[in-house]
Amino acid sequence: MTRFAFTVEYDGRPFMGWQRQAHGASVQQTVEDAIHQVTGERVAVHAAGRTDAGVHGLGMRAHADVEKPIAPFRLMEALNAVMRPAPVAILDCVEVPGDWHARFSCIGRSYVYRIANRRAPLTFEEGLVWRVIQPLDAQAMHAAAQVLVGRHDFTTFRSAHCQSDSPVKTLDRLDVERDGDRIAIYAAARSFLHHQVRSMVGCLAMVGMGRWSADDLRAALEARDRAALGLNAPPDGLYFVRAAYAGAETATRT
Amino acid sequence: MTRFAFTVEYDGRPFMGWQRQAHGASVQQTVEDAIHQVTGERVAVHAAGRTDAGVHGLGMRAHADVEKPIAPFRLMEALNAVMRPAPVAILDCVEVPGDWHARFSCIGRSYVYRIANRRAPLTFEEGLVWRVIQPLDAQAMHAAAQVLVGRHDFTTFRSAHCQSDSPVKTLDRLDVERDGDRIAIYAAARSFLHHQVRSMVGCLAMVGMGRWSADDLRAALEARDRAALGLNAPPDGLYFVRAAYAGAETATRT
Repeated sequence: MTRFAFTVEYDGRPFMGWQRQAHGASVQQTVEDAIHQVTGERVAVHAAGRTDAGVHGLGMRAHADVEKPIAPFRLMEALNAVMRPAPVAILDCVEVPGDWHARFSCIGRSYVYRIANRRAPLTFEEGLVWRVIQPLDAQAMHAAAQVLVGRHDFTTFRSAHCQSDSPVKTLDRLDVERDGDRIAIYAAARSFLHHQVRSMVGCLAMVGMGRWSADDLRAALEARDRAALGLNAPPDGLYFVRAAYAGAETATRT
Repeated sequence: MTRFAFTVEYDGRPFMGWQRQAHGASVQQTVEDAIHQVTGERVAVHAAGRTDAGVHGLGMRAHADVEKPIAPFRLMEALNAVMRPAPVAILDCVEVPGDWHARFSCIGRSYVYRIANRRAPLTFEEGLVWRVIQPLDAQAMHAAAQVLVGRHDFTTFRSAHCQSDSPVKTLDRLDVERDGDRIAIYAAARSFLHHQVRSMVGCLAMVGMGRWSADDLRAALEARDRAALGLNAPPDGLYFVRAAYAGAETATRT
C-alpha cells in the first residue's frame, strides 16, 4: 500500500462542494471515482479542507491509499485523463509516509477571495468572482481587516453548521489589495471555522461601502454573536489556495 | 440621431466570432438584437476589429446610430440587462460625433495572447488560454519576437482569407512575459492582418520549445510565404484588448 498526496485544482461551479454527497456531484467523488477507474480500488480521499458548494480550489491537498503499484507521475496522468471533462485537475502527486494526513497533518491553510468591483455584468467570470457594484474603499477594508488578525473568539463569523470544537482561532493574515477593478482578500490561518472567510469578507465589504467603520467591525467581533454579522459573502469568489505541512517531503510544486 | 461608442467585453467561446453570420451566434448580432429590444430600431453595429470564432474581447470598441433619445448611461444599463445571459457586457458608452467610426477612425489596436504552460488539464480556463505542455523559454521567445517588430511584409503570417489590400504592416510591439506557469504575449499595431497575431504566437511557441531559433523566425518572415509558417496558435488564448483613437472625447474608461 502506498499513500499518495495530491495537489488538486478545481472549478467549484458544478459541484455541491468538496465532500461526497448522496445527491449531486462533488470533487471528492470525482477523484475517488477516477482512482477506482485507474486502480480498480474503492478508496477514500481525504482533503485539507472541505470547501462548500461553489467554492474553488487552486491548490487543495488531499491523500489516498492505493494497493496497485504505480508511479506517482503515472497515477497523476491517468487520473487527469479519466476525470475529463470534469473541471478537476491533479497538479502534483507524490508518495508520502503512511502517517501523513492531508487534514490532520496540515498546519496552515490559505484562501483568496476575489471581488470584481464593477457595474457591468460579468462575462468570463460568472461564478468565479463576487461582483460588487458599489465602489469599495480597499484601503479602508485593509485597515479594518487588521482588527480581525490574531487570536479571537470568531463566533460572529461562524456558520450555525460549524462542527469545530471551539470558536477560538488565530488568524495570521487578512490582507486586502486592489488592482484596477479587482479586489483580492488574502486570508491565512492554521484552520478556519465554517463560513469564516466568507463572513469576514462580507463584513469587510460593509466597511468598503462606507456602511461600517473599523470600530463597527470590532464591535461585531466582540459581540460573539452570529446575529451581529453584517453580510456573508457568496461562495463564488472564494478559492482554497494552499495547505502547509511540516517537512520537505510534502512540499507541493505549485 | 445620436452615434454611440461602446466598449464591449465578451467571452468568445459561444460565438462564431464578432461578425454576424447566417448560421450561429455572433457578438455583433447579440448587441444589435439588444439595441433593437431597447430602442425598437434595427441598426448596424460596427467594431474596431472583427475577431474570429473563439477569440475574446476585453475592450472592443464599436459604434451604432440610434434615433431614440436616450442617455448613454441608460442605454448601457438597458443593453446589459437585455443581453443576459449572453457573456457580453457593455463597459462604457459615450456619445461621439457623427463622423467618428469605430473601425475607420481607429489608429491603434492591441491584443494579448495567453498561454498556460503546464502539463495538467485546464479547469477554470478551458477555451480561455492555450495550454502548451512543453516547457517554453519565454526569454528566448521575447528576444526572437523583436525580429517581427517594425514595418514588414507579413505574408507568412497572413490567412488565405485575409481581405487586407496589402500584406505590409507596422508592428509596434510584441512582448513576451512569463508569470509562473502563465505566458502573456502583448501585440500592438495600427492594424493587423487576418490571423497575424495567432500566426506570430504559433511561431514564437516554436522558438520557446527550442525547435526554432530567432534566425528561423527571421527566415520565415523573409520567405513571405504562408507555407513557411511554423504553427498557427488556436483562438482560445487571444483577446482584443484596446482600440486607440485620436481625440479625448473617444477615450474609454477601461
